[in-house]
Amino acid sequence: MNAFCRPKIYLALVHHPVVNKNGDTVASAVTNLDLHDIARAGRTYGARAFYVVTPLRDQIALVERIVHHWTAGPGGTFNPNRREALRRIRIRPDLSGVVEDIERQEGAVPQTVGTCAREYPGAVGYEKLREALSTGRPYVLVFGTAWGLSETVLSGVDQVLEPVRGCGEYNHLSVRSAVSIILDRLLTVEK
Amino acid sequence: MNAFCRPKIYLALVHHPVVNKNGDTVASAVTNLDLHDIARAGRTYGARAFYVVTPLRDQIALVERIVHHWTAGPGGTFNPNRREALRRIRIRPDLSGVVEDIERQEGAVPQTVGTCAREYPGAVGYEKLREALSTGRPYVLVFGTAWGLSETVLSGVDQVLEPVRGCGEYNHLSVRSAVSIILDRLLTVEK
Repeated sequence: MNAFCRPKIYLALVHHPVVNKNGDTVASAVTNLDLHDIARAGRTYGARAFYVVTPLRDQIALVERIVHHWTAGPGGTFNPNRREALRRIRIRPDLSGVVEDIERQEGAVPQTVGTCAREYPGAVGYEKLREALSTGRPYVLVFGTAWGLSETVLSGVDQVLEPVRGCGEYNHLSVRSAVSIILDRLLTVEK
Repeated sequence: MNAFCRPKIYLALVHHPVVNKNGDTVASAVTNLDLHDIARAGRTYGARAFYVVTPLRDQIALVERIVHHWTAGPGGTFNPNRREALRRIRIRPDLSGVVEDIERQEGAVPQTVGTCAREYPGAVGYEKLREALSTGRPYVLVFGTAWGLSETVLSGVDQVLEPVRGCGEYNHLSVRSAVSIILDRLLTVEK
């Protein structure tokens, strides 16, 4: 462990409010592999918790059931690495519930950083955010499912992160890929 | 587009021979989201094709059906970005079939680069491979499903890439996350 492991970083995956293909605000369904992939990537890069954000009661029950299987149930015995990752999942109905929980844990209000696949005015770059993370202030990276976070969320966060660009115009990454790449850019010690 | 887009890079996702939790050599089942996530990440970073490697006839039929839905079927109309990514999927029964296909396309035998979550003797680093990619020689990055590529594959490739490390000992990433991070490390133009 070294200095780069110390950032107080949290992840939030929002299922409402997000937009669909037509730009309408919707609540998306939880995808099982989002929980696994993002929890594992979060654990690998030292995220302190991974919040699944949904207000829907049946979706909350689904997440609880999946997490229980892999932490207290047979999944945890079968695969302890998976247990180690999924035990950091917490469920909140909205982003303010996430911020409150982090504040309770850290004793400081976290900075909220939204993510977006398109260029966003005033977006913060990776190097700058990487430096900011080293100050010791808690941060929560906020990701959207479906076609992305709604404008309500993006205009309400403290900062929006620059999009992940590959090497051309196409940047239609899955949220699982985007989380993984962003964590690597912000938190890897050496490459 | 610029110089970093020119690498002739290919991806291969191996379903046999891979190892299971106990180290036995097995053939794994195809995971639907592997196809989507890796095809989308490959397209974002300019990979020329994404080979799904499986010798199992029912799995080949499954991959063909999924790809058809998203390229020629209703999925392609619903989501053209998904079509653009999944049309680069090709199916081969083994790695030698992949190498032959790339050789036919490029007129040169590709260098094969295996990936592995653990330290491997003589593994190549990211910066070194990034430089090698700029020489114009074709490369295929080989990823394993289940608990990873079998020793047969790792000892048969030209090089093995260093594992992705986060910031501690835990590095149990999904193959979808690993592919995304490795492409970003090797092929991103600027961060």
